Amino acid sequence: MQLLSNARIAGIDGKSGQYGLSSPQVIAIDGGRIAWVGEESAIPAAYLRAARHDLGGRAVTPGLIDCHTHVVFGGDRAREFEMRLEGASYQQIAKAGGGILSTVRATRDTDEADLLASALRRVDALLAEGVTTIEVKSGYGLDIDTELKMLRVARLIESRRAVSVRTTWLAAHALPPEYADDRAGYLRDVVIAGMDRGHAEDLIDAVDGFCEGIAFTPAEMAQVFDHAAGLGLPVKLHAEQLSDLGGAAMAARHGALSADHLEYLDADGIAAMARAGTVAVMLPGAFYTLRESQLPPVQALRDAGVPMALATDCNPGTSPLTSLLLTMNMGATLFRMTPSECLAGVTVHAARALGLADRGLITPGQRADLAVWNIDHLAELSYRIGFNPLHARIVGGEFV
Amino acid sequence: MQLLSNARIAGIDGKSGQYGLSSPQVIAIDGGRIAWVGEESAIPAAYLRAARHDLGGRAVTPGLIDCHTHVVFGGDRAREFEMRLEGASYQQIAKAGGGILSTVRATRDTDEADLLASALRRVDALLAEGVTTIEVKSGYGLDIDTELKMLRVARLIESRRAVSVRTTWLAAHALPPEYADDRAGYLRDVVIAGMDRGHAEDLIDAVDGFCEGIAFTPAEMAQVFDHAAGLGLPVKLHAEQLSDLGGAAMAARHGALSADHLEYLDADGIAAMARAGTVAVMLPGAFYTLRESQLPPVQALRDAGVPMALATDCNPGTSPLTSLLLTMNMGATLFRMTPSECLAGVTVHAARALGLADRGLITPGQRADLAVWNIDHLAELSYRIGFNPLHARIVGGEFV
Ligand SMILES: [Zn+2]
Ligand SMILES: [Zn+2]
Repeated sequence: MQLLSNARIAGIDGKSGQYGLSSPQVIAIDGGRIAWVGEESAIPAAYLRAARHDLGGRAVTPGLIDCHTHVVFGGDRAREFEMRLEGASYQQIAKAGGGILSTVRATRDTDEADLLASALRRVDALLAEGVTTIEVKSGYGLDIDTELKMLRVARLIESRRAVSVRTTWLAAHALPPEYADDRAGYLRDVVIAGMDRGHAEDLIDAVDGFCEGIAFTPAEMAQVFDHAAGLGLPVKLHAEQLSDLGGAAMAARHGALSADHLEYLDADGIAAMARAGTVAVMLPGAFYTLRESQLPPVQALRDAGVPMALATDCNPGTSPLTSLLLTMNMGATLFRMTPSECLAGVTVHAARALGLADRGLITPGQRADLAVWNIDHLAELSYRIGFNPLHARIVGGEFV
Repeated sequence: MQLLSNARIAGIDGKSGQYGLSSPQVIAIDGGRIAWVGEESAIPAAYLRAARHDLGGRAVTPGLIDCHTHVVFGGDRAREFEMRLEGASYQQIAKAGGGILSTVRATRDTDEADLLASALRRVDALLAEGVTTIEVKSGYGLDIDTELKMLRVARLIESRRAVSVRTTWLAAHALPPEYADDRAGYLRDVVIAGMDRGHAEDLIDAVDGFCEGIAFTPAEMAQVFDHAAGLGLPVKLHAEQLSDLGGAAMAARHGALSADHLEYLDADGIAAMARAGTVAVMLPGAFYTLRESQLPPVQALRDAGVPMALATDCNPGTSPLTSLLLTMNMGATLFRMTPSECLAGVTVHAARALGLADRGLITPGQRADLAVWNIDHLAELSYRIGFNPLHARIVGGEFV
């Protein structure tokens, strides 16, 4: 049992996302959970003799949650990035071994230890900014063994760092060359058969797919989601990033936790998400990297009461981004989300996008995952660009 | 005297900006300068017994140079950022005390110690990414005493951190309310009279101005530059950011070290800069923050052989950016500069924008200001977003 005193607490309304900093308060922590929050003068007798940490009047938010990452992968794509800027054509880049399939090859060829080591460098960058929960997707194996290897590495992150990891089965990320002429075979033999194996090995917390002209159709993804439902696994979807296929609406009809990207989301999709309580996960890092011009319908989502989350989408091709604070700035600057929405988007709404009700707010019963900041106003977390005001990270009640 | 061995050295062609990493080499350092660079087997006898640091085959670049910052200022503008995103009008923001004049008020009201403390937080973010030289402008005082106070604080940074600081007199940044009806009076009584005082106190390394419809005309700035020339001070100019007034061409005719921003630069301006050897300083942080759509003429500058630099423009209103690595990514992603141009832009070309010939390259005679990186390829410095692979920073030959 311990007390965090002199803490200015970020109150975030889980529904409206509105926020504010309290006057200095005390947080009582017991068994890794928040037991009580209130004024110094009102500390219950049971906590009065607990150890104290004086936070010096600093701002305290829930630990940040990155609810959409591809942080486990082999290789990198720096050379491809460079070739494109030097004027190489897509054909030349493909010939030089670029594109997503280069990451698939590298991920297949890299063993668990090396995948873990490279992922930890990226994870460490996230944790340095107060992240306490990370989602990690498979999707660069496109064969069962490599997809499961990725998720085993994701689980290992939890044993190496003080962070919660949630794993997502994303075999339906792209069609591998071996199945170029057999989409149904890939879905059956790898996406669904692998899901069964991963589920049996307890490697899968949720199921995802890339629903796009260059990937899988809503009908194909519906088939995957039906199988997930049979296993009791929640679903989510990369949808409406480059075009409007109605993926988000399909996902919402399957009770999806989230639909992610959403630049081309239409009114039907928004209405379906609002009805289902599906979270809209905004990924401005990919929008920025791809220099997209189609903005996601933030005002319409806001009007419809769809909760909005923000995530890095950390991946080697379209979002080599490992800063959730910068993601908040991009959410504000590029997508015109308010700083209040940005903070809710990496805390309470990000938790919801992962189906987690035990974190994302500073209220009794929640996990004591907290971030302590050297800031005077919560808007500073979104306002600055490339600046880290973290003072301390607390996971399950422990300073880490 | 010391040896840095097993160093893969970033060779940067000062003219073309082309770059590459060498095979492992040795850098001999003597008296804070690079004395010799070459193969292990060719180390001159005089250096053979010097102390050695094995860099483990890591990449070594020149220390990074942020050649355009406003890193000294009072207050912050987070609340204004938030109000704008919450839908406040410019009138409402002005009424709430926002805009550049709010920074002027805060800077006037903050003493040297507090200005220094707040600047050091931003400076530390830059140094953590391998920066070894920073330019700092005045421009939030708009009266002589406060402008000089800003430059004294800038000089103090050098006594508190291992970094070189170059100061720039930017009293011609905006017209203060006291002189709203007397532009000539402001230029005479503050910009020019203050330049004389600052020069007498050795506080000014260069003279700058904001040449724009909302600030000063080319004719007004020419008058300021003529006075600077009389004092032997080099000049530079914020030009063509929001419109084309021909400021860059005027600055080039005055032999300016650099013209900065340049989104609206035309062919005449480019030709004048090429003739004068004026560096084009790109500031993508401001472009990003203001959501501009007019791109600077990178291809035309490249074709004309104008050296391009990149800088944070760190300031509280239009570029609250404290990451030069992120600036490199923005230069590539937003402005389509190649990673090679981005690295030259924060090293050799940035040095030139400050009139410094003694840094920005790893060659004998240069200052031993170096950055050591955990990367395999120099393109990684521009490719990643919000990731810091710095291994060590070396200033004047000392690991710091
Ligand atoms: Zn993704
Ligand atoms: Zn500036």
